[in-house]
Amino acid sequence: MSKFWSPFVKDLVPYVPGEQPKLAKLVKLNTNENPYGPSPKALAAMQTELNDNLRLYPDPNGERLKQAIADYYGVQPAQVFLGNGSDEVLAHAFHGLFQHGKPLLFPDITYSFYPVYCGLYGIPFEAVPLDEQFQIRVADYAKPNGGIIFPNPNAPTGCLLALDAIEQLLKSNPDSVVVVDEAYVDFGGETAITLVDRYPNLLVTQTLSKSRSLAGLRVGLAVGHPDLIEALERIKNSFNSYPLDRMAIVGAAAAFEDKAYFQQTCQAVIDSREQLVAELNDLGFDVLPSAANFVFVRHPQKDAATLAASLREQGVIVRHFKQARIAQFLRISIGTPEQSRALVEALKVYLG
Amino acid sequence: MSKFWSPFVKDLVPYVPGEQPKLAKLVKLNTNENPYGPSPKALAAMQTELNDNLRLYPDPNGERLKQAIADYYGVQPAQVFLGNGSDEVLAHAFHGLFQHGKPLLFPDITYSFYPVYCGLYGIPFEAVPLDEQFQIRVADYAKPNGGIIFPNPNAPTGCLLALDAIEQLLKSNPDSVVVVDEAYVDFGGETAITLVDRYPNLLVTQTLSKSRSLAGLRVGLAVGHPDLIEALERIKNSFNSYPLDRMAIVGAAAAFEDKAYFQQTCQAVIDSREQLVAELNDLGFDVLPSAANFVFVRHPQKDAATLAASLREQGVIVRHFKQARIAQFLRISIGTPEQSRALVEALKVYLG
Repeated sequence: MSKFWSPFVKDLVPYVPGEQPKLAKLVKLNTNENPYGPSPKALAAMQTELNDNLRLYPDPNGERLKQAIADYYGVQPAQVFLGNGSDEVLAHAFHGLFQHGKPLLFPDITYSFYPVYCGLYGIPFEAVPLDEQFQIRVADYAKPNGGIIFPNPNAPTGCLLALDAIEQLLKSNPDSVVVVDEAYVDFGGETAITLVDRYPNLLVTQTLSKSRSLAGLRVGLAVGHPDLIEALERIKNSFNSYPLDRMAIVGAAAAFEDKAYFQQTCQAVIDSREQLVAELNDLGFDVLPSAANFVFVRHPQKDAATLAASLREQGVIVRHFKQARIAQFLRISIGTPEQSRALVEALKVYLG
Repeated sequence: MSKFWSPFVKDLVPYVPGEQPKLAKLVKLNTNENPYGPSPKALAAMQTELNDNLRLYPDPNGERLKQAIADYYGVQPAQVFLGNGSDEVLAHAFHGLFQHGKPLLFPDITYSFYPVYCGLYGIPFEAVPLDEQFQIRVADYAKPNGGIIFPNPNAPTGCLLALDAIEQLLKSNPDSVVVVDEAYVDFGGETAITLVDRYPNLLVTQTLSKSRSLAGLRVGLAVGHPDLIEALERIKNSFNSYPLDRMAIVGAAAAFEDKAYFQQTCQAVIDSREQLVAELNDLGFDVLPSAANFVFVRHPQKDAATLAASLREQGVIVRHFKQARIAQFLRISIGTPEQSRALVEALKVYLG
């Protein structure tokens, strides 16, 4: 604490990202990155931008990328917002759409950045408990609120909420913005972007860090009614005119345009997940039904923190959250088949 | 306006960046970019990062870049903060260091993003008039304040405040944070980073968009006492864990390490500026003394807006601000000698 700090700074409890270890040899299954590289077409597009023109500012509106996303989803560019990763998009959404005095609602088990944003912008919130099966129960959100947000599939559970349940939520909260955070939707969910033309209170966010293998490039997006997008643009243009660099704009656009590579790598991850789930079941793990590129698992007889430590000793990193209700779970990112084998072998060593 | 917006959004007056024209043929002297490309070593470093590892998150702390900056300036990495362009760094500084109820002070003629940040974070401010020669007069800042910020050299005037005047400001405001925004310092100023070890209330911000020719990569930084840096880190980690992508981290680090190229290109810009100033004087322009990569000029007999329009018709873009006191000035970025010639020829056509 320093007298120079704005008063709210001392109360901030920043988000803690998953470890980015410096050892290349580790089997890194802790931050839900894609085991496959970006589209070769995305790399090629970035290659064309790697030149002296980097002396020039990027397009502040990222029009090339907005158009690629609009084409992909069949919406208008004015319904698309871009940011430096979906974390920045979410930050602006909290700031611009959730400051209404009443508590923001989100699940008790969810992306741990949500309460951090609330701290940053002074937004009251209420964590709504997931049910006993770790599912979102839409009826529990029927209370006064200043907005609703949840990931779909949820993180770190991987559990999916069906589109008709989302529609029910949108209909019963016509005066609140509902943000559906689809960081993981491409691994088994169905996007709610198909609903944006009918629900002016719906904002869908996505990232290129997971299904499009570009975590290292920092690109996120939101799709919604132009009025919601305008709020985000006003904030973005009052914060940083150029959040996406020249290579990010063209690389991300090319990634959206290369549908074949995208579908192929998503399917490979899904296949690995299904294979891994079967093996984890065989080893006695409980595995929540996952529509994401990770699984959320517990072993009835083994302590999760001890298990994570043992895996780490064997060169496999997974993520453990010291949090009520899920302290006995591990979140394991889906890797390549080889990485799955290394994980399963390490688990067998520990389980004996 | 929409009922879904947080109330403050409707009152935002976003920053308007200089135009990024799509026509490649234009002589673009409107956004103070460097006429020379980035260091070949920076491009080479980025080339090594353009690969499948883009599927992985970057180092959230950008340690490689912090170390390069710390080495360059002879400070500790804990005194360095990184952001997505200096605009993001400034946004976090306004949020984290300037919310003290009392008005923030900055010059009446200055970077037009400052009042925008105040709008975003609800910070009261007072614009302190520059003197008749468009210089900052330190004595005018001797009043109760919640912080002080100014660019040095100032923008869009290009005028420099001497280090001893900055030191006087720091000494007479021991309870306020003073931010010195050194976007243009490498073109003729002296950095105040040499003062950070003696003044815990000093924060110096810089960008790689001007003297290091990387506007397209989005990298900015701040140097100051670790307590000030901690406030910025707390906010950054409550907003977006990874603002710098993998290529930005290595490209920016290599740019700081290539001192020879940096010095050579800065000197070329300075030489072009001195040459251009002489020619503008010959054409009858008043030119404010510039320590930046732009000049701020007026012609005693010619209307600035009309002049800018004529230049544009001839394929040369400069920046005109419709603002009291400076409505008869043009801000002209320093280009290559060829661009200067094109500008001077276009001016001669107009002036007849």
